Amino acid sequence: MGVGDVSKRILLGRKLRSSQLGETLLPKRIALPVFASDALSSVAYAPDEVFIMLSLAGASAYVWSWKIAIAVAVVMAAVIASYRQTVHAYPSGGGDYEVATVNLGRAAGTTVASALLVDYMLTVAVSISSGANYAAAAIPALQGHEVALAVALVLILTAINLRGIREAGTAFAVPTYCFMLAILGTALYGFVRLAGGSLPHVESAKFDIVPAPGMESPLGTMALLFLLARAFSSGCAALTGVEAISNGVPAFRRPKSRNAATTLLMLGLIAISMMVSIIVLAKQMGLRFVDPNSQHRLLLDGKPLGDDHTQNAVIAQVAKAVFNDFPPGFYFVVAVTGVILVLAANTAFNGFPVLGSILARDGFAPRALGSRGDRLAYSNGILFIAIMAIILILAFDAQTTRLIQLYIVGVFVSFNLSQLGMIRHWTRELQTQRDPVVRRRMMRSRVINGIGLTFTAVVLVVVLITKFLAGAWITILAMIFFYLVMRGIRRHYDNVEAELAAEQEDSVMPTRVHAIVLVSKLHKPTLRALAFAQASRPNALEAVTVSIDDESTARLLEEWDERNIPMPLKVLHSPYRELVRPVVEYASAIRKANPRGVVAVYIPEYVVGRWWEQLLHNQTALRLKGRLLFTPGVMVISVPYQLHSSEQRRRELRDEYWVAPGTIRGAGRYRGNQTGR
Amino acid sequence: MGVGDVSKRILLGRKLRSSQLGETLLPKRIALPVFASDALSSVAYAPDEVFIMLSLAGASAYVWSWKIAIAVAVVMAAVIASYRQTVHAYPSGGGDYEVATVNLGRAAGTTVASALLVDYMLTVAVSISSGANYAAAAIPALQGHEVALAVALVLILTAINLRGIREAGTAFAVPTYCFMLAILGTALYGFVRLAGGSLPHVESAKFDIVPAPGMESPLGTMALLFLLARAFSSGCAALTGVEAISNGVPAFRRPKSRNAATTLLMLGLIAISMMVSIIVLAKQMGLRFVDPNSQHRLLLDGKPLGDDHTQNAVIAQVAKAVFNDFPPGFYFVVAVTGVILVLAANTAFNGFPVLGSILARDGFAPRALGSRGDRLAYSNGILFIAIMAIILILAFDAQTTRLIQLYIVGVFVSFNLSQLGMIRHWTRELQTQRDPVVRRRMMRSRVINGIGLTFTAVVLVVVLITKFLAGAWITILAMIFFYLVMRGIRRHYDNVEAELAAEQEDSVMPTRVHAIVLVSKLHKPTLRALAFAQASRPNALEAVTVSIDDESTARLLEEWDERNIPMPLKVLHSPYRELVRPVVEYASAIRKANPRGVVAVYIPEYVVGRWWEQLLHNQTALRLKGRLLFTPGVMVISVPYQLHSSEQRRRELRDEYWVAPGTIRGAGRYRGNQTGR
Repeated sequence: MGVGDVSKRILLGRKLRSSQLGETLLPKRIALPVFASDALSSVAYAPDEVFIMLSLAGASAYVWSWKIAIAVAVVMAAVIASYRQTVHAYPSGGGDYEVATVNLGRAAGTTVASALLVDYMLTVAVSISSGANYAAAAIPALQGHEVALAVALVLILTAINLRGIREAGTAFAVPTYCFMLAILGTALYGFVRLAGGSLPHVESAKFDIVPAPGMESPLGTMALLFLLARAFSSGCAALTGVEAISNGVPAFRRPKSRNAATTLLMLGLIAISMMVSIIVLAKQMGLRFVDPNSQHRLLLDGKPLGDDHTQNAVIAQVAKAVFNDFPPGFYFVVAVTGVILVLAANTAFNGFPVLGSILARDGFAPRALGSRGDRLAYSNGILFIAIMAIILILAFDAQTTRLIQLYIVGVFVSFNLSQLGMIRHWTRELQTQRDPVVRRRMMRSRVINGIGLTFTAVVLVVVLITKFLAGAWITILAMIFFYLVMRGIRRHYDNVEAELAAEQEDSVMPTRVHAIVLVSKLHKPTLRALAFAQASRPNALEAVTVSIDDESTARLLEEWDERNIPMPLKVLHSPYRELVRPVVEYASAIRKANPRGVVAVYIPEYVVGRWWEQLLHNQTALRLKGRLLFTPGVMVISVPYQLHSSEQRRRELRDEYWVAPGTIRGAGRYRGNQTGR
Repeated sequence: MGVGDVSKRILLGRKLRSSQLGETLLPKRIALPVFASDALSSVAYAPDEVFIMLSLAGASAYVWSWKIAIAVAVVMAAVIASYRQTVHAYPSGGGDYEVATVNLGRAAGTTVASALLVDYMLTVAVSISSGANYAAAAIPALQGHEVALAVALVLILTAINLRGIREAGTAFAVPTYCFMLAILGTALYGFVRLAGGSLPHVESAKFDIVPAPGMESPLGTMALLFLLARAFSSGCAALTGVEAISNGVPAFRRPKSRNAATTLLMLGLIAISMMVSIIVLAKQMGLRFVDPNSQHRLLLDGKPLGDDHTQNAVIAQVAKAVFNDFPPGFYFVVAVTGVILVLAANTAFNGFPVLGSILARDGFAPRALGSRGDRLAYSNGILFIAIMAIILILAFDAQTTRLIQLYIVGVFVSFNLSQLGMIRHWTRELQTQRDPVVRRRMMRSRVINGIGLTFTAVVLVVVLITKFLAGAWITILAMIFFYLVMRGIRRHYDNVEAELAAEQEDSVMPTRVHAIVLVSKLHKPTLRALAFAQASRPNALEAVTVSIDDESTARLLEEWDERNIPMPLKVLHSPYRELVRPVVEYASAIRKANPRGVVAVYIPEYVVGRWWEQLLHNQTALRLKGRLLFTPGVMVISVPYQLHSSEQRRRELRDEYWVAPGTIRGAGRYRGNQTGR
């Protein structure tokens, strides 16, 4: 085992065998946490964003907080209801991409795909940044090092995912249930203390908030409306991730659609109650929360706070106060919130390669991404998303508030197209459906999707208006970029397919095969290549050597004669000591002399086992092959000679089988389709 | 032209055609500057190091400065005299590496090679760091940014060298002669003013120097001796680069050896007079110069200077004072000194790939480095040395003083082995030589080399004693590392050669060829591969497809029948949707059934022209080929199908010819020797 292998083992872990692969169907109690971590985790940052936006007009604007929570909850209910229809209509796991592609065409599908690509990156960046802030709330030593911590967390997740860890149901179930328990427990205990009149204030209750410039009360109606719209659109961050279940229907136990729909309903109820509780409690406990970049607007006894003050996240502040008589409760809440945020980021790491393989199947991404078990393709995807997330974290200083501005656009673009696609779906189904009972159900579904579309369309417009300058333009540019790249790739594949389409006359057989064997020295690989070439019985066969130094050429010719090799050895002179060009030119000349024939170039190659040995051999052969492929009418034949050191490596390659991560979640979305190599 | 090509063009410049290659022989007046820049440039930093070392005992120790200059000059004279013998003995350009290898064996040669490798890196780091300090002396705005400037200079040099610029004689001649003019002019004008009594003091003359702790006067004899030894060994930095001419003898006009020897003598005289003049003048002008890291030892009116004081280099100080009535003189001196230092660094960029190709020829470096015109190999060498130099600059903060400690060991290791080799050379020649005149000349040469060896051996011992803890241990470790790597590579090549050595029975011809053509779709590349396979008339021929999805396989089988392709299509089922493993296993099975036969695997490949198109195609084919090479008894046949987009790229490849940099200097050292591909 070489150095490279050892370090890869350390980094990536033992390879998984195919026998370890097994897909299990999930009961609802496991499916809920598996698919819900993403959606529920947004409760950890959505309330903060609502309070930050409202604080622009000072603490007095917090009276609107619970109304905004209700508005977000209504939108969420509409979206959940909509996706319940999708789950019934696409029991095979209709992700937004497929719903949009099937019902609205390729352009809509590609738009959704680019929105999802951007979303995956932002999911990692937002969740990890938020998680780092929670960690800093619990461990004061980490305060001020959130960026470094966030980057470290991304790197750890990357390493874990490169190891190919699977999303085991229980690995998700425990922290997700703990998170529900923590948040709902905090809410319950908080409301009990509120009822008993013993609810303490949060740590920030002692501050005053100076309104942002131009936002001093009394606010004009338009200004107030705009403020509330901004707060609302920030709060809609809570909706991210609710679509996950609709992708995963095939992973449910039977009856799949019904179980998935029930789980979706449970998810919605839990998410809504968690979010509303936190916002109401925080308001009751006198929370004061501003943008971390304008903490000077926080006043303590009339004096502004310095920028070194650190605001703890809303859930952390609420939990600290509610459990002021029971500190372990606070630490439990903060710890599980951090864990759930990291798990949410992990879903993006899992989802990205799956999306890549679907796009590859449809020709919008390199086909190589579509082949299952291709460790390289998956690894590249994981590295890509990790690098993009780290760039986002560094560029936005791990500040959830600034990243959120980029986040919601993409989510709502795919919501909208998905709902629109569903309306088309029902309309089309209704054209052929005659059974009045079924028709009535379909029409009801169409109405529900229509309501969902209305709500999500309004939110999208609000988000675009309120967030465009704050960062949404970046997302839109990125989406356009990915859209164009995907369309370009597809166009390329289409062009190639058209160029390659076989006509009847394409099967003409070459009239003769002229074989040349490249010889540099007379050793075993060369002799093997000569023997293989002879065994192939070409019409003409000659050995060819490039002379860059007369002395060694003379030695070679001498040896050639001694061995009585029954074919001529042609010497190509190379005044500039080049190896590649003379061979390419000679092959072209042969072909030109006989345009209906084919030139077969035999190249002896050593096969060695260790990566550094590869660097020491075959570099010229590689370059030569690369050039010869560009020469028409030439085929290149590699005749390998396996050195001892290749044995070990061959055994390793044989044993290697890589199980792609995301097998469970992606189960229904992935259908390999060999359309090219 | 793709995006990649355009950016490569911008970065690397137009490709050079072979017709542009032409080697010209150099007259002495051009050869001197071409080979001297490295040696002369060390005058720019060697005096500084002498003064820094002496200052440890306070300014009073400066009385020793001119004696040390004389000692260094004596050593230099001995070394120059020695190399004049080498030039006569090896008119083909006997570099230290060849002299040591031929006369002392492989181990000595490899030692010299590792010393040279380390030297090349340090030449870049030291010269550029020193150059950055000169630039900062002339442009105060650069002060404090020396590290960034040095790194930027290395990057610029790297870009220039990647463009493949050649060392045109005049490009070297002008700045080198300007440098001689500047330094000797400064010295002359300085001595004139000294004689006239109007020589001003340098800017640092107003300072006092506090001796370093433990170095207060009166010094004990041993301490003084050690101090002088340190100053002397630092001054020996002036000797670096004098061996360059001995490598370049073949580039001289006839009589080559005599001209080279004369040039060497001129170089020695100029270098010695420059160095001695600068040291004597600086002493006369009251220079005070300490280690830049202990500037608190400089006192102004009894008070230590802060660390923000910037000492200018010795030549800069001397020139500033000598030309205090003529500022352009100062700027000229500093500017050409900076330029010559950068040119000196450039020689390392040129020399490194040449050394690499020689080592490759002898099997101590990857063979690919030995093939001329391999842009990649040269580029990798340039990038390697650039990265190492940047690491050194960053690690040692662009402080010439600290880098010098690492520098001199390697230089003197190769001096010593080279002189020792020369003595062996003369002794061996004397055994066969009978002509008494020639014998007398040879014995005289041997004595000169003996004196050279004595001096360089003493210096090496002094350097090892005085510099070991200051940094020479790093160099020694690096040399040992490179030595072991080179020996490892050589051992690997030797083992491979032994393993590959052909015996008589190796020419056994396989009894039958079983060909399989891989089919994924029925398009033109596949049809071409099928036709080529048929034209090769194997004993058995079948087409093989891997089924990862029943639907498309059924479609393929249908099309197969429609087209009446006259061979069976075998379907390999792949339950885990893998493409590579089933093919490898099938090929192994065929081979196992007939161990004396050979399996020919035909792989249709698209050939596209743009790099990003490459990413979109053939990835599976590549992986498959990689695996098949490890399977014994298999040959892999790439049947290329050139798409339209490959045409442009093919024309470019045809026109591409790259002229390696360093053609002139390396002319005699480089003799390609094709010992493997």
